Amino acid sequence: MTHTILASATREVVIGSDQPFRIIGERINPTGRKKLAAEMVAGNFSTIEHDAIAQVKAGAQILDVNAGIPLADEPALLARAIELVQSLTEVPVSIDSSIVAALEAGLAVCKGRPLLNSVTGEEERLESVLPLVKKHDCAVVAISNDETGISEDPDVRFEVARKIVNRAADHGIKPNDIVVDPLVMPIGALGGAGRQVFALVRRLAEELKVNTTCGASNISFGLPNRHTLNGTFLAMAAGAGMTSAILNPLHEEEMGCLMSSDVLLERDKDCARWIRRFREPGAESSANGGRRGGRQARRRDTVAAAS
Amino acid sequence: MTHTILASATREVVIGSDQPFRIIGERINPTGRKKLAAEMVAGNFSTIEHDAIAQVKAGAQILDVNAGIPLADEPALLARAIELVQSLTEVPVSIDSSIVAALEAGLAVCKGRPLLNSVTGEEERLESVLPLVKKHDCAVVAISNDETGISEDPDVRFEVARKIVNRAADHGIKPNDIVVDPLVMPIGALGGAGRQVFALVRRLAEELKVNTTCGASNISFGLPNRHTLNGTFLAMAAGAGMTSAILNPLHEEEMGCLMSSDVLLERDKDCARWIRRFREPGAESSANGGRRGGRQARRRDTVAAAS
Repeated sequence: MTHTILASATREVVIGSDQPFRIIGERINPTGRKKLAAEMVAGNFSTIEHDAIAQVKAGAQILDVNAGIPLADEPALLARAIELVQSLTEVPVSIDSSIVAALEAGLAVCKGRPLLNSVTGEEERLESVLPLVKKHDCAVVAISNDETGISEDPDVRFEVARKIVNRAADHGIKPNDIVVDPLVMPIGALGGAGRQVFALVRRLAEELKVNTTCGASNISFGLPNRHTLNGTFLAMAAGAGMTSAILNPLHEEEMGCLMSSDVLLERDKDCARWIRRFREPGAESSANGGRRGGRQARRRDTVAAAS
Repeated sequence: MTHTILASATREVVIGSDQPFRIIGERINPTGRKKLAAEMVAGNFSTIEHDAIAQVKAGAQILDVNAGIPLADEPALLARAIELVQSLTEVPVSIDSSIVAALEAGLAVCKGRPLLNSVTGEEERLESVLPLVKKHDCAVVAISNDETGISEDPDVRFEVARKIVNRAADHGIKPNDIVVDPLVMPIGALGGAGRQVFALVRRLAEELKVNTTCGASNISFGLPNRHTLNGTFLAMAAGAGMTSAILNPLHEEEMGCLMSSDVLLERDKDCARWIRRFREPGAESSANGGRRGGRQARRRDTVAAAS
């Protein structure tokens, strides 16, 4: 069983096929969010504060933090965002940047055992990111593209993943600390994109013994009714062995499908999380009322525990 | 490739893993529908008329027809219902009864190549239903229970299915004319119910070379938010190799997940059905307007073609 162990200062979260599907909240990212980018540059982190709490409340078990703003001091912004997120929530973070100095700045302030997002098969990236993973004893997202770009051939993407896993081993990093993103193509352009990912996820788990993740929304690019397609894709990917994904947990369709997949794959004992989330308030017996109130109070405590 | 070929007088529908997931509309069934039962006994078939057309419009490619009303003349009612359904729609029917005389009456009036619903592993049922399947050269649903009831052990259910397939062979019936229902348990009572079905479906396809079906809604019995769970279950079952299911096609969540699974498993060429169903009317270009109008007109023709 491949277990990727992440942690905040106070909480451990394990990614693995015997665990609930792990939802990495994607909202804290100024890419394509002009208002958020402007706020961050101006030193206003209130949206990040809100996004952190809202995503954990909606079910994110890990929070991705990205501060990629052109011409801004990304390392300083990323470090500040991570410190803020860790002061507000107890979930582990994913430190997300294409700039190595920003990853280093994030690692310097981050408590616990984060996920570093990301390494690719590019030579320069391998040799700059993997030493950080080893030095800080953390886990890393491995994206299966290299200098030649993203191949449409899933076998090529598998070989890039294998190359990253092998190189990581040279640096003393074990496969269970690598979470491979097999890269999801838009199915409107490439009809086999879904089957490719399902097959790749199986191979990655069986042959490379790694956990897997993906950006879920690419699959539906350009198509109508995207949330239904994304949610179904995520559940089917979970059925094929995918163990985490980066998504917006405020999207109810995606979360409904993922929570269903946990029930259906026997990762939600006695359907407890399902029932807690979807039970009709009116259907609640008075005997359960007190207990449920207690649960909700505890959940609020958890979100704000470290504040 | 296992192909189960069904037909009406004018249209062939193939069940198989290279085909769209086949939706067998379940609505024409008086069980639990007191009003419908009373209407049928009184000779009023207007609800059936409406249910037939509405289900085909919603995406059913096969219609299940059941006339199981205690103390009524079931053979006569079933035959009349089948004739009516076949006069209104072009889809093949599934002749559904626990009474052999009713199956015979249905077969006597049915045009094309129906699905007979069903045989079980019970000795008496095997020896009364299989000769009908052979005589009328049709396909049959095989439910994996026997005299001992429904086993919670999936291996036992698999062996019942194998027994039916072997007995069918003795009668000269090939595996591709048998559509096995591996029986879906409520996951609220049996946590492994989902994984059981996914594993069984794979084994049934690989080892017995049969197509599969199920009553989809059992999985969520007793739980809240049933449609999300049912839809996700169906998509994941399709991912495991299930090729048809008996459900209410008027339920949008189930249909959204199943149509997604067709896109994701590359059974909806160029996402054409997906786009047709979910495209925003406002997003339509004038260049497409005429073509779409043509499609809708044809679809209406199809429903009413044989009327």
